[in-house]
Amino acid sequence: MTLLNEYQNSTSLRKRFKNYTKNTCSTKLLKKRLPIIKWLPKYSIPFFIQDIIAGITVGLTAIPQGIAYAVVAGLSPEYGLYASLTSGFVYIIFGSCKDVTVGPTAIVSALVAKYVAGYSSDFAILAAFLSGVLILLMGIFNLGFLVEFISMPVIKGFTIAGALQIASSQLKSFFALAGSSGNYFAESVYNFAINIKTARLWDPILATVTIIMLILLQKLGVGCKRTDGLLKQIRWFTSLGRNAVVVIIGMCVAYVIKITTDSEPLALVGEIGNGLPNIGLPPFNTIVGNETYLFSDMLQVLGPQSIVLPLVIILESVAISKAFAEGGKVDATQEMIALGLCNIIGSFARSMPITGSFTRTALNYASGVQTQAGGVTKCLLIIVALTFLTSTFYYIPKASLAGLIIVAMFSMIDYEIFPKLWKASKREFFLLLITIIVCLCAGLEYGIVTGVVTEALMLLFNRSRPVIGVHTLKHDTGDITLISLPEVISYCAAEHLRRLLFKVSLKFDINCVTVIDGTNLRSMDSTVATNILSVIEDYQKRGRCVWLLNFNCNVQKLCTVINGNIADKFVSAPNALDLAVAFHKRV
Amino acid sequence: MTLLNEYQNSTSLRKRFKNYTKNTCSTKLLKKRLPIIKWLPKYSIPFFIQDIIAGITVGLTAIPQGIAYAVVAGLSPEYGLYASLTSGFVYIIFGSCKDVTVGPTAIVSALVAKYVAGYSSDFAILAAFLSGVLILLMGIFNLGFLVEFISMPVIKGFTIAGALQIASSQLKSFFALAGSSGNYFAESVYNFAINIKTARLWDPILATVTIIMLILLQKLGVGCKRTDGLLKQIRWFTSLGRNAVVVIIGMCVAYVIKITTDSEPLALVGEIGNGLPNIGLPPFNTIVGNETYLFSDMLQVLGPQSIVLPLVIILESVAISKAFAEGGKVDATQEMIALGLCNIIGSFARSMPITGSFTRTALNYASGVQTQAGGVTKCLLIIVALTFLTSTFYYIPKASLAGLIIVAMFSMIDYEIFPKLWKASKREFFLLLITIIVCLCAGLEYGIVTGVVTEALMLLFNRSRPVIGVHTLKHDTGDITLISLPEVISYCAAEHLRRLLFKVSLKFDINCVTVIDGTNLRSMDSTVATNILSVIEDYQKRGRCVWLLNFNCNVQKLCTVINGNIADKFVSAPNALDLAVAFHKRV
Repeated sequence: MTLLNEYQNSTSLRKRFKNYTKNTCSTKLLKKRLPIIKWLPKYSIPFFIQDIIAGITVGLTAIPQGIAYAVVAGLSPEYGLYASLTSGFVYIIFGSCKDVTVGPTAIVSALVAKYVAGYSSDFAILAAFLSGVLILLMGIFNLGFLVEFISMPVIKGFTIAGALQIASSQLKSFFALAGSSGNYFAESVYNFAINIKTARLWDPILATVTIIMLILLQKLGVGCKRTDGLLKQIRWFTSLGRNAVVVIIGMCVAYVIKITTDSEPLALVGEIGNGLPNIGLPPFNTIVGNETYLFSDMLQVLGPQSIVLPLVIILESVAISKAFAEGGKVDATQEMIALGLCNIIGSFARSMPITGSFTRTALNYASGVQTQAGGVTKCLLIIVALTFLTSTFYYIPKASLAGLIIVAMFSMIDYEIFPKLWKASKREFFLLLITIIVCLCAGLEYGIVTGVVTEALMLLFNRSRPVIGVHTLKHDTGDITLISLPEVISYCAAEHLRRLLFKVSLKFDINCVTVIDGTNLRSMDSTVATNILSVIEDYQKRGRCVWLLNFNCNVQKLCTVINGNIADKFVSAPNALDLAVAFHKRV
Repeated sequence: MTLLNEYQNSTSLRKRFKNYTKNTCSTKLLKKRLPIIKWLPKYSIPFFIQDIIAGITVGLTAIPQGIAYAVVAGLSPEYGLYASLTSGFVYIIFGSCKDVTVGPTAIVSALVAKYVAGYSSDFAILAAFLSGVLILLMGIFNLGFLVEFISMPVIKGFTIAGALQIASSQLKSFFALAGSSGNYFAESVYNFAINIKTARLWDPILATVTIIMLILLQKLGVGCKRTDGLLKQIRWFTSLGRNAVVVIIGMCVAYVIKITTDSEPLALVGEIGNGLPNIGLPPFNTIVGNETYLFSDMLQVLGPQSIVLPLVIILESVAISKAFAEGGKVDATQEMIALGLCNIIGSFARSMPITGSFTRTALNYASGVQTQAGGVTKCLLIIVALTFLTSTFYYIPKASLAGLIIVAMFSMIDYEIFPKLWKASKREFFLLLITIIVCLCAGLEYGIVTGVVTEALMLLFNRSRPVIGVHTLKHDTGDITLISLPEVISYCAAEHLRRLLFKVSLKFDINCVTVIDGTNLRSMDSTVATNILSVIEDYQKRGRCVWLLNFNCNVQKLCTVINGNIADKFVSAPNALDLAVAFHKRV
């Protein structure tokens, strides 16, 4: 039996640092940090064809989704396209995962929405820049592990609440209501209730038709593959491009009505900024209404809760690259560097915050993309759209987008998680509910933070009540009370242990020897040591006998440093039963 | 071997609740909640004499300390006496520990000082009321365990920094400087440096003499006991009453100078409110300068950091009752209820916040107190002081108090903790330093919160990197990689485990069977389960063989709820070596 590897938590920070400094000096580093120089030289014609096909299918989804998620964020539609465009190009160079497609996503847009609604689009762009910087720093300093503290129930709750919030924010467009939509679910529903009187006729009809079409088109593609015969291929392609299809149909309807009756019964997207984005510094100060916001004022508006944005960006993207890595190793550091640069560079071209998109990545994978170059075709399509189609986009009905978004949101909800978690663990079910409720009633940032903090507190509480076994060994020479310590005992369990030891001393008569068994104990801290030592002193004062069994060197050292008199209390024995005779002889 | 007790963390909250409801219904409850009806009927003449002696020694310390700590808080001296008086009476009725003496203490005064300096004495009294309410609620709802999350290094750091802060705040009185003293150590030292030019001559001389006298008087009592001969008894008593002695000497000096030269070269305490405190509602609104503060404004001034005050009150008092319980059980709930009531009722008689005082409790114990009735004599002495001596107290030199406080503070510092912690654990030494530094540079509240949060984060990080053993079992039929899970594996370790399993799969050839050994595993959550299951799916996709060994029922149930297909992966065997043959036959 060879000891291959023993992961020691105490050394892990030091290890990380060593690994890090080693990596920065290695020759492989350039290839790692610029993945394009790894795949580009091996590029070939078959790759090219596959990548073009994938790029077109992804592009046809990226354009309507980009427009829709810009609308979710409350931005003019071209911001979504700008974001897909710049991030697409940056990811080609720095991205490490061929399938991943970056751009605006629903949840990230929802997180940005309140700044846009309350202030202006400049805040969304600054948020992209700042998030990018934070993500880049976290990538460089290997801090990606922070997202590991967001557990599955919290992520699920956050996603479900995010989907509900976004869907509810679309009620305004669905019914073409007056008033604003609201910054979180409860507000959106409230605004919907008080504005329902202003609902118009044709918008909800179009939105409903859009939803039905999307569902039917999805069903159309079931059982079809890219590699099937022509008819099935067409079904497959139409199904994948269904977002574009419904938007085009809606657009045609609005256009036909306009030219035949010269009226606009449907609320339309309207004027869209034409052409490519202007390049310039991100907005480090801005004017909203008559008020000037300096950089410090803008930071204050974004507030500490804006730290949630970069974490969510990392979370979404890492989850996606893991899902599509197919067991291949995910270079989380490189993914974070790429994401950081996508957001930073994007913010110089008025891009909203972006991350990896699950739907478009899945589409990319299903379309058989071979390298990151698939993004080139997607970006070219977006450039075409921005240059020639913005006047056409004028006619996109908001209700079509609302239908599209609502369908996307309901397909994002994992309904099974409720019965699963209920059966698996009531504690985690409760955590899921708490996260959802706070997200819905106070906003997504507060919900995810509440979830993470609640779970961390539960873990701490749990850690403060470790499982400590108390057994009595009967023996001719007298009884032994054996108190078995767990693997790790932390400061917050010190008092619990003290109380337990005290109770034990009350329960048994004075001749009973107490043995604190540290065979499993790997580590403890000085708070616990101090408490154990004070209990031992107390036992001795009252004439009771106590031994510390099989404590390892580190723990022994810790105890003797705290109190030198304790050194003769340590004993070792192969197992507890062997002790009985030995101890009673010794006593 | 009988299983006596297995402390299960999952049931502990429920248990608490059950215990709680049971306790509230029991007949013993009245005696528990009103300890006076337990000890008063058994009261006797010998008890009475002992209690009077103890009451006098404690009273002679409580008066100068009460005045000194009111001065530390920036309050007029009578507030310290009011606080000792009301809390003394309330504790007689509700206190569960005969030795504990409550009243103003240095650290609590230091925590209140900034509100008094920035606003007015009303804020100190409101703080007493609110802290009392919080402590009472925490007592009733059994939330005292919260202080268990403050570890020994953090408490030590906080105490050391508190002592330094209080000592530094006395530099002003020591040198009779102009200007204010400062809300935290760094500010006090800075103010001292810029005001040192305004130092007067006689005050530092008197303060230095006071310090020397206190040290000599302390040495005088060494080796003397209450039960020794008359001479030794006098030495013992003078030594214990040294605080009163130096204050009286200082007072006499100032008085003699005044009547002989009709001048006041020393800064004196000055006018003191005469007589007993006025009874009335605590100040729920107040006027500072020309500004009116409503209750909400006052709450805002106290701020969220004022939550530290009740926690420190509980911490000090629980630590003291534990130290003097002599292994007797401390009824923490009752102590908290008593403390809460002391503060609440005190605030109706203009008392500052109070807690258990370590020095006076030790004195009470050394003086041989028999019951809580010792407090009666102490309170009578204070009433006498408040009624007849306030005009005498006019002549107490501030420099004498400064000397007294500085000596008390330096005896509060545990100097040994630095080398001890350095040897025991660098991590905890670092924690101690962090706590001290933040306390000194930003204030005590921020320091203790920083310490607690840092330690909790360290624990969480530690928990996210558990020790997972990886061993290879060589066998004729093929190798087995054995991955031994620890007792508990939490959500934050899920990713770590996934990475480890992935690395293992890369390291060994495809015929090597991987066994995840859950023999020690007691519990895990659905995040970990999800990750393990996704790794298993991945292993299967790549044709690798993996088994889950000896997972307990709960964990098995959790896994099958998350993914039903996994049920046939569970195996059990007495030990890992037995597996080798069985597995390779099965594969």
